[in-house]
Amino acid sequence: MLYQRSSSVVLGPARYGKAEVRIVHVSRNGAEHALKDLAVSVALSGDQADTHLTGDNAKVLTTDAQKNAVYALARQHGVATAEEFALLLTRHFLSTCPYIGHARIAVEEYAWDRIPGAESRHSFVRGGREVRTVLVHADADGRSTVVSGLKDLVVLNTAGSEFHGFYKDEYTTLAETTDRVLATAVDARWRHTDSAESAPEADWDKSYARARAALMTAFADTHSLSLQQTLYAMGERLLSQDDRVAEVRLVLPNRHHFAVDLAPFGLTNENEVFYAADRPYGLIEGTLSRAGAPPDPGAWE
Amino acid sequence: MLYQRSSSVVLGPARYGKAEVRIVHVSRNGAEHALKDLAVSVALSGDQADTHLTGDNAKVLTTDAQKNAVYALARQHGVATAEEFALLLTRHFLSTCPYIGHARIAVEEYAWDRIPGAESRHSFVRGGREVRTVLVHADADGRSTVVSGLKDLVVLNTAGSEFHGFYKDEYTTLAETTDRVLATAVDARWRHTDSAESAPEADWDKSYARARAALMTAFADTHSLSLQQTLYAMGERLLSQDDRVAEVRLVLPNRHHFAVDLAPFGLTNENEVFYAADRPYGLIEGTLSRAGAPPDPGAWE
Amino acid sequence: MLYQRSSSVVLGPARYGKAEVRIVHVSRNGAEHALKDLAVSVALSGDQADTHLTGDNAKVLTTDAQKNAVYALARQHGVATAEEFALLLTRHFLSTCPYIGHARIAVEEYAWDRIPGAESRHSFVRGGREVRTVLVHADADGRSTVVSGLKDLVVLNTAGSEFHGFYKDEYTTLAETTDRVLATAVDARWRHTDSAESAPEADWDKSYARARAALMTAFADTHSLSLQQTLYAMGERLLSQDDRVAEVRLVLPNRHHFAVDLAPFGLTNENEVFYAADRPYGLIEGTLSRAGAPPDPGAWE
Amino acid sequence: MLYQRSSSVVLGPARYGKAEVRIVHVSRNGAEHALKDLAVSVALSGDQADTHLTGDNAKVLTTDAQKNAVYALARQHGVATAEEFALLLTRHFLSTCPYIGHARIAVEEYAWDRIPGAESRHSFVRGGREVRTVLVHADADGRSTVVSGLKDLVVLNTAGSEFHGFYKDEYTTLAETTDRVLATAVDARWRHTDSAESAPEADWDKSYARARAALMTAFADTHSLSLQQTLYAMGERLLSQDDRVAEVRLVLPNRHHFAVDLAPFGLTNENEVFYAADRPYGLIEGTLSRAGAPPDPGAWE
Repeated sequence: MLYQRSSSVVLGPARYGKAEVRIVHVSRNGAEHALKDLAVSVALSGDQADTHLTGDNAKVLTTDAQKNAVYALARQHGVATAEEFALLLTRHFLSTCPYIGHARIAVEEYAWDRIPGAESRHSFVRGGREVRTVLVHADADGRSTVVSGLKDLVVLNTAGSEFHGFYKDEYTTLAETTDRVLATAVDARWRHTDSAESAPEADWDKSYARARAALMTAFADTHSLSLQQTLYAMGERLLSQDDRVAEVRLVLPNRHHFAVDLAPFGLTNENEVFYAADRPYGLIEGTLSRAGAPPDPGAWE
Repeated sequence: MLYQRSSSVVLGPARYGKAEVRIVHVSRNGAEHALKDLAVSVALSGDQADTHLTGDNAKVLTTDAQKNAVYALARQHGVATAEEFALLLTRHFLSTCPYIGHARIAVEEYAWDRIPGAESRHSFVRGGREVRTVLVHADADGRSTVVSGLKDLVVLNTAGSEFHGFYKDEYTTLAETTDRVLATAVDARWRHTDSAESAPEADWDKSYARARAALMTAFADTHSLSLQQTLYAMGERLLSQDDRVAEVRLVLPNRHHFAVDLAPFGLTNENEVFYAADRPYGLIEGTLSRAGAPPDPGAWE
Repeated sequence: MLYQRSSSVVLGPARYGKAEVRIVHVSRNGAEHALKDLAVSVALSGDQADTHLTGDNAKVLTTDAQKNAVYALARQHGVATAEEFALLLTRHFLSTCPYIGHARIAVEEYAWDRIPGAESRHSFVRGGREVRTVLVHADADGRSTVVSGLKDLVVLNTAGSEFHGFYKDEYTTLAETTDRVLATAVDARWRHTDSAESAPEADWDKSYARARAALMTAFADTHSLSLQQTLYAMGERLLSQDDRVAEVRLVLPNRHHFAVDLAPFGLTNENEVFYAADRPYGLIEGTLSRAGAPPDPGAWE
Repeated sequence: MLYQRSSSVVLGPARYGKAEVRIVHVSRNGAEHALKDLAVSVALSGDQADTHLTGDNAKVLTTDAQKNAVYALARQHGVATAEEFALLLTRHFLSTCPYIGHARIAVEEYAWDRIPGAESRHSFVRGGREVRTVLVHADADGRSTVVSGLKDLVVLNTAGSEFHGFYKDEYTTLAETTDRVLATAVDARWRHTDSAESAPEADWDKSYARARAALMTAFADTHSLSLQQTLYAMGERLLSQDDRVAEVRLVLPNRHHFAVDLAPFGLTNENEVFYAADRPYGLIEGTLSRAGAPPDPGAWE
C-alpha cells in the first residue's frame, strides 16, 4: 500500500487525526453524578495518497469531524470505560468513511474521587497522580487489539533493596550496597488476549484495579537485588493474576536517591537523609509475555 | 540599607540562596519507616553590598553551604513538619553568619501514602496531586512569620453552580446560566497569627489537615453564584475553623468546562458532555483576614 | 476599601480577569505580512464586594467579555508593541465598566523571525528562546506604570568567572576557584520612568532591543568574581544606557556546571567536561534603581 | 533470545541504561572557546536474563559506569558532532562488557550562539528553540544505523494555505477555506543510508544544516492544500537534496489558529486576529523513503 509521485520518492506509512481531545462526561442519573475525564487521540490511516501527493482532500475525514464524533458519541453512548469508548470510536471511524482502513484510539484517563466530608454528592477532587491509559487498534476487517496501562505511578521502598555483584569495567566506581532506597515512576502497559468486544463491560475497571494492585504490591513485597528483578516480578504478578493478559511492557526509571555524605560535618548518615536526583536516571525497560501467546508488535505503537 | 557605587545607581533589596534542595528524610525508628519528601529553597539577605559592588565575597555564605546545612540539620533534628524544619533553618542561618540579617525558607512537601495491600511497611506511593507549601521569614531580631498553604488541589462541582446577572458592556456575549460545571486548581495560603515557636509540634499537621478539609468542603457545599463567592466561602471557612490563622490568600483559576454544542448533529446536551479548555482561563484572586488582625505583607513574598 | 460580611472576617485586596489569552495578530499590509504573538492576561479590581459576599454579579465584567475585548481591540487598533497594546487595554477596561478602579495587563510576547532562504515573505520561524514581557498597571485616576522585561534568556561564559574568598561556616566545603563556567537564565524587568503615553511608538521596541543587548553584553564582558557582581553590572549597564528606566529587577538562577571528576579514570579535566545540574541551583535576586527615583512597589506585582 | 523462569512467563525484549546524561563540553583550544551541550541517553541490551530472573548482576554494567563513560570519552575524544559521539559510545559499550550485544545511544543537542556585540569570545546565548536529535543503534556484529533529526522547530505561514474539498460525514461541520494560517512544530527524523563511519566528520553538521533548511523552505514555499501535502513536500525536499538519506519520518501537529469571530461586535476579521489554540490539535504523521531503499524499522525505536 505504497504510493508514488516520482520515481525516486515513496510514501510509506502515514496517519492523521485529532490529538488530545479533552472531554469530561457527566452522568447525571440518580442521586450522585459520576464523572469521566479523558484526553482522546484519534489516528486514522488508509487511502491517503491523494492529499499527500496533490492536496486533493476528497478522501480526508477532517480532524475537526473526528473531534465532533468524540463528543457526539460520548453523548449518545456514554463513557462506561475508556476501553469500551475507544473500541466504540474505532468502529465509528471505520464505518463512517470508506477511505479509512485502520483506526487507532489512544486515551488518557484522569481519576477523580468524591470530596470526602462534603454533603454534596456532585463534588470531586482529582485523585492519585497516575494516569490510566488505553490504546486500541482496529482494522476494517474486524480485527482489534486492546492495550491498557498506567503511567506516573510513583512508588518508593525504604527497605528491601540491594545492588551489588555487578560487572566492573574501567569506568565502574559505584559502591556496592545492601541497603538503598528504590524508587520509580511506573509506566506499565498490558495487552489483552481476547477481542475486547467479548468481555463484559465491568471487567475493564476490575482488570485495571487488579493490575494496578499487582504492580504496586509486587514492587513493595519483592526483596530487590536489582530494579530489573523488581520489573520482572511486577510483570509476572500482573500476568499471573489475569489470564486475559498476554503481554506486559514496563518502563521503570530508577529515581536515584543518594544518601548524602555528611562525614565532613562529623555526622553519620545511616540511610536517613537522601538527595533526590532529577537527571540522569537509570532506565530499565522490559517485556514479559505469557508462554505461547503470539506477539503483536503493532498493538503497542 | 541601600548601598551605592556611583552617584547614579543604587542597590536596593537583594537576596541569594540555594533553591529547590530536594531532600527525602527517612525515619527508621520502629516497625514502620516514615518518609518526608521536600524541596527546600533558602533565600538570605543582609550586608551584601560588597559582593555586588566589588565581588568581595567575605560576607557571602555560599549557597553550597546552605544546601549542606539543609541536609545536616535534617540529619540532626529530623523533619517533624515542614513548618518546624523551615523555622529551624531560619534560626540556623541567622546564627551561623553575622552578615545575614534575614532568612526566608520556602518549602514544598510532596505527600506519600503507604502502599495499600502490601506486606511491606516500608513501601510508599505518591499521594494526592496537591503540594503542601510553607513560607517562613525570620529576622535577626527574633521576629518570624509562618505562612502555610497548598497548591494544585484540583476540585470540580457538577452541580450547584450558576453565573448570571453580570455587567454587560459592548463585548459581553456570554450566555447566562443557572447550571454549569465549576472547577479550579486551588492555590491557597494562610498566615498564622502566633509565633510559630509557640505552637506544639503536632499542631502544624493538624492545622494543615483542617485547612485542607475546610477548603474542599466549602468548595463542595457552597451553592455558587460566582467563583468569587466560592472563593470567599472557602477563605471564610478556613478562618472560622482555626483561630490561629490571621489571613488567607486564594488564587483560583476558573478551569472552564464548556458544554459542547451538539445541535448540529441533532443531539441535545443537558450538561453531560464538556470540553475542558486549557487557555485562556478566568483567574480569581482574593484575600480574607480576621477582623482586627494587623496585615503583614512581607510574610507572603 | 475593605468590605465586611460578618464581624469577624474582612475581604481584602481582590482581583479577577482572563488569563493567558493567546492572540496572534497578522498585519497584512504591503508585500510582507508581519506577526505579533502574545499571551495577554487581564486582572481587574474595584468594587467587587457584592459578588464575593452575596454572588450578586451586577458589578462584574465577565472574563469572557475581557477576552473578547482583547481580540476586538487588536482588530481595531493593531498591536504595534506589547507595551502600547497593554496600555490601550487598561484604558479600555477603565472606561467600559464603572465598577473597575484598576486594571493590570500582563503580556508575554513570543518572537518570530522570517524563515531564512524562503521565497515566501509570509513565512516565519519561532525565534530565540527568551520571552518578552510587559506589565502595565493603570488607575481610574489616570496614573499608569509600565514595566518591560524578558525571561528565559539563557547565557553562559566559559571564561572570566571566579568564586573565592567567601565566608566559611561549619557547613562550608566548597572549593574556591579562579576559573568556572558561569551560566544563568536571565529574568529581568525594568520600570520606565515616564508615563507610557508620552513616549513615541517606536521607542518601546528600541528600548527593548537596547536593554536586551545591555544585559547580554554586561553578562559577557564582566569579569565575574560572583554572580552577584555580574547581576549588579547587568543592572547598572541597563540603567546607564536608558535614561527612561528608573529601576531594574533581576532574578538570576546560577545554573551550576560542575567539572566532572575524571581522576578515578586517570584523566585530567581542565574545565573541559561539565555536568549541567538541574537542581538545586543558586538563586541571586537584586534590584537597582536610579539615584533619586522614587520607588513604586505596586508596579511590579 | 528469550529466557524463562516458569513454564508460563517469558522474558522478551529488555534494555537498560542511563538516561539524560547532561554534558557540556568546552573546547578551549585557540582564541575562541567552543561549546557542545548534550543530553545523552544510553540503552544497552544483551544477556540480561540473570538479573531479571534472580537478581544476579554479574552481567550488568551499571548505569553509573555508563554515565562515567560518557564523561570520560568526551574528555578523551571531544565531541565533534553528536552523531560521531554517539557512534563512539556504541563502540565503547559493545567492547567494554561481553554481555552487551546491542547499544542504543540517543542524543539531544541544544544550540548556542556567540553573544552578539560582546568583546568576550567565550560568551554564549542559547540559540533557536529547536533541538537537534541523534539516534544510533549498533550491534556486536558491527552493524550500525544513524538517524538524525530535529524537534520543536516551530514554523508558521500567514499566506498560501487552503483546506477544502474534504470528505463530509455526519459530524463534519468545518467550513472550507482558501486562506488560513498554517503552523506546526516540526518533528523530523531522517535515516542515513551509509554506515556512519564512512562519512567524513564535517559532513554531519553540513547534512544537518541542509536538512533543516530543506524542511523550513519547503514548508514556507509550498502552496498548501493540506498539511499532509506540506508534509510530503518537506520530506521530498529533504530526500532530494541529500543522497545519503534513505528515509524521512515527519510528525507535524497542526497548531490551529482560529480566526476570531468579531461579527458580534460589528467588526470584520479578514484573517488578521487569531486565537492560537492549545488542544486538541490535528496530528499528521508520514514516512517518505527513497525508492529502492530497504526499510529498517529497528533504526527508529
